[in-house]
Amino acid sequence: MPRLRDLGVTPGVLPTGRYNAITDVPGVLVGQVTLIAGEGPLRPGHGPIRTGVTAILPHGGNLFQEKVVAAVRTFNGFGKAMGFEQVRELGTIETPILLTNTLNVPRVADAVIDYMLAENPEIGLTAGTVNPVVGECNDSFLNDIRGRHVRAEHVLAALQHASGGPVAEGAVGAGTGTACFGFKGGIGTASRQTPAGYTLGALVQSNFGSRQHLQVLGVPVGQHFRDRLLPLSTPPSGSVMIVLATDAPLTARQLGRLASRAALGLARTGAISASGSGDFVIAFSTANRRPHRPAQDVYTLQAIAEEGQAVIDDLFLAVVESVEEAVLNSLTAATTMTGRDGHTLYALPTDELADLLRRYGRAAG
Amino acid sequence: MPRLRDLGVTPGVLPTGRYNAITDVPGVLVGQVTLIAGEGPLRPGHGPIRTGVTAILPHGGNLFQEKVVAAVRTFNGFGKAMGFEQVRELGTIETPILLTNTLNVPRVADAVIDYMLAENPEIGLTAGTVNPVVGECNDSFLNDIRGRHVRAEHVLAALQHASGGPVAEGAVGAGTGTACFGFKGGIGTASRQTPAGYTLGALVQSNFGSRQHLQVLGVPVGQHFRDRLLPLSTPPSGSVMIVLATDAPLTARQLGRLASRAALGLARTGAISASGSGDFVIAFSTANRRPHRPAQDVYTLQAIAEEGQAVIDDLFLAVVESVEEAVLNSLTAATTMTGRDGHTLYALPTDELADLLRRYGRAAG
Amino acid sequence: MPRLRDLGVTPGVLPTGRYNAITDVPGVLVGQVTLIAGEGPLRPGHGPIRTGVTAILPHGGNLFQEKVVAAVRTFNGFGKAMGFEQVRELGTIETPILLTNTLNVPRVADAVIDYMLAENPEIGLTAGTVNPVVGECNDSFLNDIRGRHVRAEHVLAALQHASGGPVAEGAVGAGTGTACFGFKGGIGTASRQTPAGYTLGALVQSNFGSRQHLQVLGVPVGQHFRDRLLPLSTPPSGSVMIVLATDAPLTARQLGRLASRAALGLARTGAISASGSGDFVIAFSTANRRPHRPAQDVYTLQAIAEEGQAVIDDLFLAVVESVEEAVLNSLTAATTMTGRDGHTLYALPTDELADLLRRYGRAAG
Amino acid sequence: MPRLRDLGVTPGVLPTGRYNAITDVPGVLVGQVTLIAGEGPLRPGHGPIRTGVTAILPHGGNLFQEKVVAAVRTFNGFGKAMGFEQVRELGTIETPILLTNTLNVPRVADAVIDYMLAENPEIGLTAGTVNPVVGECNDSFLNDIRGRHVRAEHVLAALQHASGGPVAEGAVGAGTGTACFGFKGGIGTASRQTPAGYTLGALVQSNFGSRQHLQVLGVPVGQHFRDRLLPLSTPPSGSVMIVLATDAPLTARQLGRLASRAALGLARTGAISASGSGDFVIAFSTANRRPHRPAQDVYTLQAIAEEGQAVIDDLFLAVVESVEEAVLNSLTAATTMTGRDGHTLYALPTDELADLLRRYGRAAG
Repeated sequence: MPRLRDLGVTPGVLPTGRYNAITDVPGVLVGQVTLIAGEGPLRPGHGPIRTGVTAILPHGGNLFQEKVVAAVRTFNGFGKAMGFEQVRELGTIETPILLTNTLNVPRVADAVIDYMLAENPEIGLTAGTVNPVVGECNDSFLNDIRGRHVRAEHVLAALQHASGGPVAEGAVGAGTGTACFGFKGGIGTASRQTPAGYTLGALVQSNFGSRQHLQVLGVPVGQHFRDRLLPLSTPPSGSVMIVLATDAPLTARQLGRLASRAALGLARTGAISASGSGDFVIAFSTANRRPHRPAQDVYTLQAIAEEGQAVIDDLFLAVVESVEEAVLNSLTAATTMTGRDGHTLYALPTDELADLLRRYGRAAG
Repeated sequence: MPRLRDLGVTPGVLPTGRYNAITDVPGVLVGQVTLIAGEGPLRPGHGPIRTGVTAILPHGGNLFQEKVVAAVRTFNGFGKAMGFEQVRELGTIETPILLTNTLNVPRVADAVIDYMLAENPEIGLTAGTVNPVVGECNDSFLNDIRGRHVRAEHVLAALQHASGGPVAEGAVGAGTGTACFGFKGGIGTASRQTPAGYTLGALVQSNFGSRQHLQVLGVPVGQHFRDRLLPLSTPPSGSVMIVLATDAPLTARQLGRLASRAALGLARTGAISASGSGDFVIAFSTANRRPHRPAQDVYTLQAIAEEGQAVIDDLFLAVVESVEEAVLNSLTAATTMTGRDGHTLYALPTDELADLLRRYGRAAG
Repeated sequence: MPRLRDLGVTPGVLPTGRYNAITDVPGVLVGQVTLIAGEGPLRPGHGPIRTGVTAILPHGGNLFQEKVVAAVRTFNGFGKAMGFEQVRELGTIETPILLTNTLNVPRVADAVIDYMLAENPEIGLTAGTVNPVVGECNDSFLNDIRGRHVRAEHVLAALQHASGGPVAEGAVGAGTGTACFGFKGGIGTASRQTPAGYTLGALVQSNFGSRQHLQVLGVPVGQHFRDRLLPLSTPPSGSVMIVLATDAPLTARQLGRLASRAALGLARTGAISASGSGDFVIAFSTANRRPHRPAQDVYTLQAIAEEGQAVIDDLFLAVVESVEEAVLNSLTAATTMTGRDGHTLYALPTDELADLLRRYGRAAG
Repeated sequence: MPRLRDLGVTPGVLPTGRYNAITDVPGVLVGQVTLIAGEGPLRPGHGPIRTGVTAILPHGGNLFQEKVVAAVRTFNGFGKAMGFEQVRELGTIETPILLTNTLNVPRVADAVIDYMLAENPEIGLTAGTVNPVVGECNDSFLNDIRGRHVRAEHVLAALQHASGGPVAEGAVGAGTGTACFGFKGGIGTASRQTPAGYTLGALVQSNFGSRQHLQVLGVPVGQHFRDRLLPLSTPPSGSVMIVLATDAPLTARQLGRLASRAALGLARTGAISASGSGDFVIAFSTANRRPHRPAQDVYTLQAIAEEGQAVIDDLFLAVVESVEEAVLNSLTAATTMTGRDGHTLYALPTDELADLLRRYGRAAG
């Protein structure tokens, strides 16, 4: 599947990490399960199925015992993301982060609890409970969302097979059934390296946007496809989930500042954050970990000195560029998908996109 | 089961509604299912079971089609309440509100989805998705919380048998296994009528507080029971869920102001909102309803004129008094409960409480 | 002074109002006072002076007696904007909105109090107090900011001469000394009309951005001027104040949703919301007014039905497009300005900009 | 002037610091200027004057160069507190904290800028600007608030004469003209020591509450004075400013958690946070300081491990108890004050209070 850079485009100014993926942040793992089954008319509860689950693990150890510092930002709260209250209060994430479809959030959260309970026998006995963090998009244009077809076994498979390195993009995992600017969207990722030596990666589940608003590097791509490759009816107003990872040492407050900037990356693709689009951001740092049972009453944590603004500003820029490119990668990597009732979401034709970008002077060749 | 007022105490200055319960707000229904099974050593996944579910229905109609204006406030976010993001953004609640234990939140939310899907065939087809609102407390001191024993059938039973009138309090429903100030806590409710003719009701799931901090009308009751009727070990740091209902016409912003004052009612009982206590408030008005598919692009809603402060201030006072009394009712109505591993939470002895209150000049007789 | 559209560019898809200005919202008035005096070395407290004040009046009547429904959003709080707490709580603005430089905020607020006290003899006697809303940017690269040269007489002049119709842009009023993407920034404005017949206008005080990030319709304009027309040293990290006005009937909650989208408009110009950039948004509706002393305890207000998403989404789009174009107008309308210590901020050369936009296929001709 | 403990009352369970004052936190200084002049009919702009200013300095050094970690919480935003946006974003305070009356906020903020500019010649040149933090209450029942009689010289005097040790309470400084529960309120302070060895202090400017709601240790004191010692007319709905200081090492997020609990302390005195009562909290730690120009890009800060909950919970309890006692001290220390138009606020009679507390078993003797 082509990525945006395969079209001769170099968006932004910062260099990418090795894989141009969230997994460029050392230790971060991604696992996905894609569910495609059936075709034809929708039979609620039965199919067709075009959905899945994407798991992001901040590290490969026991996340409950070794939590990561984290923050969330809700840019538009019309959505059902789960687990945000505790992250806001405590500034930590203690489970893998799961993405799925809207109606499947509880089942996926329940499976995360299964996983955490198995790994941590003291939860619910001597160690309090656990806070699953789950995000979602509405994939009902293609998928029998009422069927809630993502089951515990799929979640566990995504967690168990999570790995570093390249990340599958497009119509996979939690992005299997999603739409972006009226094209087939899905999972996308990108990363940036900052001059101070930090890596920041973004992963998105893209499911937002009206065709006419799509911009690629400012080129009005959506206008060029205004009357072509449209879905027969309008997909429901979607959403976008954004996960940010970094190895920069940051406090929860600082991660919140990074998370705010994700919206700026969305905007570069033409997003207006429509009323029905639940736009949520989850950010974590792998550099500040908190044990579940600390040995001391006082601990030290490291933070970027914001007074010397270059280091934090480069991280902000890395967020904006990574989110922009991750969304565009979710489009270029997606393949045309037909789902329930013959609903079809077309892939953004990457050859035409490349032509357009060249015509507007934004791609090489 | 005695309520606080049965002890000769009249807390606060505003009159109560007929039942001194959240159901005094016309149309509000409450349904509860209590699960008690097994005893002896904890066998995780099997029991003993001391848990349940409490459902609050803002009205008896189709809540998805006729949403209520609502607000949430997170006073201490160390908890797993679900559905808050969308309420903050849109200012409406479109499902029943469910309370349960912490690890059961996803299963209960999934059952709410079952219920909503059955009632609204267009959800997930032509009508977007649905946002379950679920609150929780950690009842693991008595209950096999890892077993997640509240199932869909229990949720549906609570919803189907929900009714107006008196509300069962103490060790029932979602309060079956909870602890409050080291005594047996649980469900409590109270209501107030304001001079302008509005009714405000509160329902709490109490699971917070250290013994030494318990105050009843300022009387240091906790100090008097400092060495008696203590659990053998300390229950995990708990939480409190507070649901507020009113028939006063309020906007979401105004309901948020009411919800903030709930913490003041808690404080009157001695609450310090300990770090591990997830303290959440959900408030709704039955007076401003929003159809899922409005006929017009512009609608009118009614609101209390805050500039004439008496009306809104009386509602604030009603919140403070109702929450205080609901917590105290959750204590006086509770009965001693022994759960897993022989863990026992003693009921606050109401005769001794009455004596104490008399001795301190706070109760009649 | 040229505006962006004079270059043959038509940004966005919605039509503008008559003046393409915030004053297209009926009743909204803008008044500005520009202070330019002295040159040469900075003598703190004396000059040179390159500053001013911009006043936005939601309507021409007595704002204290007839408040407008309003909301604020802080996208990046590194700034000294004043009056936001009360707007968040009550959802109203009861004074003109003033913009000035950072250290002048208190003096301008004090002058607003003068103005309000003169107009409303009951303030501080029988009618409570009053909440001035003042925004700011740091213009110290050109201006003797320590001198706090905006005095009460300037504020009163801006208020008294406020008018509808065309709005002066560029290096005027509160934008006299500001920098945007290393060019001369300042005041900019734009407006949009939505299909439902509403008007939305934006006014910005632009003082943000690093040269390299400047984009115009996605064209990497900043990169083209990477080595030219640069200030000799880097201006301090700036800020941006954004004021949004509309005649659409909206609640405070809904106006908050509009205000959130302003950041998306900024992002289209290349903004990353640098750490030192205080980015604040103030939004009001002229359609829902609240009397200081309402005759009734209950009132009705009108709101857009968000369930029929097109109307609110068009307003969101109007925000994004208006803010983007207002920022660009603040650049194209600005003239080169030399201030203290010979510091110079160059105007973005509009002929070269037009050439660039043509070269990238984004301007006519 | 008697303090609550002089009446034989020992509120709460934690021990106080040496002075039972915010100045028990090492390094914290308080300075106050009280302005009392004229009597008889109000002549707006001339008098009578019953107002003042209270300054809290987190340490005696240069606060701009050595900022303190801080947080703010707005419990009820109907007020004009200034400087909160930046504290929320950056988690630091870089000036003294000033309290005054509502309409004087800008003048006091301007004077703080004077002071900071004089101390830091680089502000506005090479070092950005500065963020004054000012809180306020409406003292117009006694004071000619329109006159804005607190001038720069008073602010500078408060700052220059700030000291450690005992703090004047009651009708002094910013509390000179304020009302609390219909009695004379004003400045009050208290402190607590936690088992882990930390000190937490609170200082309040009390100006809130209706007579009937006043409780002291739960004793319905307000009801006992329902018909006596009332002001002839009702003071305007007031406010309360709360400043918290601690030497515990806390992050901004953690200080925010402490600040939230201040409302619980208010509630113990009977507060309902009336609509017109702007209730604001400012909290800082003297243990984590941030240089304006850090030498390194990465720094370490210390924090309390919240997982071991006792240490943070004791700090929460210290907040609740200190705020409660500070409010009560503001009442017991106040003296009857007559101001404009013969308006009189009576001191809460401490002998009768002591009698009442004894009668209800809450005071010794």
